[in-house]
Amino acid sequence: MAKRTAITPTRAEDYAQWYQQVIKAAELAETSSVRGCMVIKPWGYGIWENMQAILDQRIKALGHSNIYCPLFIPLSHLQREAEHVEGFAKECAVVTHHRLEKNADGELVPAAPLEEPLVVRPTSETIIGETFARWAQSYRDLPILVNQWANIVRWEMRTRMFLRTTEFLWQEGHTAHATAEEAQQETLMILDLYHDFVNDVMAIPCIKGEKTANERFPGAVNTYCIEAMMQDQKALQAGTSHFLGQNFAKAFDIKYLSAAGHEEYVWTTSWGSSTRLIGGLIMTHSDDDGLVLPPRIAPLHAVILPIIHKEADQQRIMDYCQQIAASLREQQYQGSNIKVRIDDRDMRGGEKAWHWVKKGVPLRLEIGAKECDAQMISVSRRDRAYNDRQKLALNELSATIAKELADLQQHIHQRALANRDQHTHHFDNKDAFYDFFKQSNGFVYAHWCGDGGVESQLQHDLGVTIRCLPLADPQPGACIFTGKPSAQQAIFARAY
Amino acid sequence: MAKRTAITPTRAEDYAQWYQQVIKAAELAETSSVRGCMVIKPWGYGIWENMQAILDQRIKALGHSNIYCPLFIPLSHLQREAEHVEGFAKECAVVTHHRLEKNADGELVPAAPLEEPLVVRPTSETIIGETFARWAQSYRDLPILVNQWANIVRWEMRTRMFLRTTEFLWQEGHTAHATAEEAQQETLMILDLYHDFVNDVMAIPCIKGEKTANERFPGAVNTYCIEAMMQDQKALQAGTSHFLGQNFAKAFDIKYLSAAGHEEYVWTTSWGSSTRLIGGLIMTHSDDDGLVLPPRIAPLHAVILPIIHKEADQQRIMDYCQQIAASLREQQYQGSNIKVRIDDRDMRGGEKAWHWVKKGVPLRLEIGAKECDAQMISVSRRDRAYNDRQKLALNELSATIAKELADLQQHIHQRALANRDQHTHHFDNKDAFYDFFKQSNGFVYAHWCGDGGVESQLQHDLGVTIRCLPLADPQPGACIFTGKPSAQQAIFARAY
Repeated sequence: MAKRTAITPTRAEDYAQWYQQVIKAAELAETSSVRGCMVIKPWGYGIWENMQAILDQRIKALGHSNIYCPLFIPLSHLQREAEHVEGFAKECAVVTHHRLEKNADGELVPAAPLEEPLVVRPTSETIIGETFARWAQSYRDLPILVNQWANIVRWEMRTRMFLRTTEFLWQEGHTAHATAEEAQQETLMILDLYHDFVNDVMAIPCIKGEKTANERFPGAVNTYCIEAMMQDQKALQAGTSHFLGQNFAKAFDIKYLSAAGHEEYVWTTSWGSSTRLIGGLIMTHSDDDGLVLPPRIAPLHAVILPIIHKEADQQRIMDYCQQIAASLREQQYQGSNIKVRIDDRDMRGGEKAWHWVKKGVPLRLEIGAKECDAQMISVSRRDRAYNDRQKLALNELSATIAKELADLQQHIHQRALANRDQHTHHFDNKDAFYDFFKQSNGFVYAHWCGDGGVESQLQHDLGVTIRCLPLADPQPGACIFTGKPSAQQAIFARAY
Repeated sequence: MAKRTAITPTRAEDYAQWYQQVIKAAELAETSSVRGCMVIKPWGYGIWENMQAILDQRIKALGHSNIYCPLFIPLSHLQREAEHVEGFAKECAVVTHHRLEKNADGELVPAAPLEEPLVVRPTSETIIGETFARWAQSYRDLPILVNQWANIVRWEMRTRMFLRTTEFLWQEGHTAHATAEEAQQETLMILDLYHDFVNDVMAIPCIKGEKTANERFPGAVNTYCIEAMMQDQKALQAGTSHFLGQNFAKAFDIKYLSAAGHEEYVWTTSWGSSTRLIGGLIMTHSDDDGLVLPPRIAPLHAVILPIIHKEADQQRIMDYCQQIAASLREQQYQGSNIKVRIDDRDMRGGEKAWHWVKKGVPLRLEIGAKECDAQMISVSRRDRAYNDRQKLALNELSATIAKELADLQQHIHQRALANRDQHTHHFDNKDAFYDFFKQSNGFVYAHWCGDGGVESQLQHDLGVTIRCLPLADPQPGACIFTGKPSAQQAIFARAY
């Protein structure tokens, strides 16, 4: 008989459905009555808040300040950069009216048409362009380094919670520089920031690379990205950083007076990471029992579960739990206090423990009369089997807990890395490439000559795209599709 | 000759224009190309971030969790609570289309009409109603205590930066309870939270009260508010907390199974505070030289201004400044480290000092060769005259700085309180009331019988409204307009 799992179906049975069920069981988010928009519930939003706090601190440490720009973009503004508007036109939600009034039938309808339609921001380069044009007057005003936390709307035909939603939350950085070199440096510095955050904090291994022309951000000169492999061996783009050259500077007339007294266009960048990362988190670490959270962004590090069989034991068990909680809260993990909660709800012990398993809390501390008498704690780690309990003496707890969290963080990172390594292949001929993707998913390294037609063919034949041209160690060779010279291998995969 | 001021015009010359000029000089925000929407600049957003951090912590300490709900509300949803939609219909921005396409003339136009128009949230009670209907199943699910930080759109005919903008940022709390008493208690608990935050943290004295039926939130049973007096003696509503009774529970069918096994409607509350408070901050504390910031929410507590006349002095003055900065950063004020910056830009000393005066930084520390030699610091406080410098020995600095900040915080609060006291009046007859408001602004306490017709008349005759029925110490009397019995005095004023 198959082992019972907390999530039905399992990953092997139906990966897409398993994903939705993990979200539901962990109480991360739910669909709303608005097409493609979700309600992010306290546990899901708590994860986002922790991600925000760390990202925000790192972005500020590199000299950026937060600002806030309008939600709406006048249609005429969006059109000022031609490639940009073309790239986003299909995804725009448009405000055309203000004011609701009753019509002759007594129905409430939009009443006052706007002189100019307003697009709900699908990204803010154009509104930033107009803003930077006011801010960049002299070379003394440069660089301009800003970031904003905002909601974004992109009308998507097929939506999936966190991964692709009509509305999502993100941070978008925007910078303006005096030279191309400085802007390029910024673009790659932020790519490193994203890589380190996703890799180290979210424990999701990812590869830094450059997008091909086909996959570039509309209006960018270069788009850089980090790409991660999910447990179904499909790719997820986990953050992008764009060198925009002078495209937006020219479209929005962002000029400054140089030290030498000349009028020059600035060089700009933009970069973003979003709630989509939570989708990547789920698909990287979770198992058939539900969510698994990296301790560095978990809303709770540990939950204490009092197990009370006799009423007479209640007081001393609860006192002991309080003592443990107080002692843990004084311990540090990654520079802040351990976050711990005692779950004393009136509920069966097994049901309660599984509740926290499904939510992905890193450590469960079970405390019954036996533990209380022996001044012990029974500790279960979310990355180990449900019944795999470690007995700790109370006086060992302080020294152990941060170590266990660090170890869990490292273990799930290594597990994800092993999954990626196992499903990464190098092919030097087209037939092997096609044979592989007809049956499997994974990352395939192969030489490619740079021809966009090849990309279209692969998309059509296999649903496979070039995820990136990895930045590390490029070696020349011959394109496996055309035989032409190739500057380096590309990474091919099916992607979310 | 009149004393030169950094802001032109002065408050006395043109209060409304002075307000705009303070915002500009302090680099808080600027208008954008989108009607009624502003760009919040780093200094303004830094203030908002500090406000958010403190409010968020206090809201969470009372047991609330953050969530995120969709930006859009289907038109049919908004209509489910009749008073609610009527109250907001005029202010709604409406998304009617998605997708942009070129028309026959090659112009980009909204292309795909939505089946149902989507209103951009003017507040989230309706989307929350639908959500709570899913969440509240059993009495065990209650209370539901959530909050969200979000952007809000209300189409306003006349806008003014921070005070009334088409888009603004806020937090909105939403709760559901098993009993009316519990919901009422929550409503007043949050009113206290807002009062203490605005009064203690923002140093803006405010009065807790209840709104009249005319001024209630659309759909509420009771609306409570805090009201503050600005320097032009007009009132500003600085936060509201609503007891919604079962109005939204019935409109959205939010029912739960009670412990006794009956299906019952929940009782709900909602409450909000917004970037409008920054407008109140400006109008309460600022002077004719620009912004004055309460230290508890200032992005910087102190700025160090090196004054270098000879190049030979540069190194030792800068070293001394670094030493002072390091020592200050180890000091605590209100539980976090003192935030200090050395401004070593190449700029005239006077210009530089005035830059920070206009931005409202609480303390300016001027350090020249003389201070360096004597191991002294010259300290200027933003709430005192520009030339009023205090000489401190280096070894006194640590002990003094937090004290000076606390003293400044208290001083500007008392100054605001004195302004309010000076311009608060009690009238016991209608003629005196009319005479006063024909010539002046201020808070007027007067007995009122509860007749909404009187309110409309006063609005029409004088542009005066009832700001609130203050909660403190109600005493019965006779209405000064009708002679009928009055349960308590109301506060009358012109308002923003």
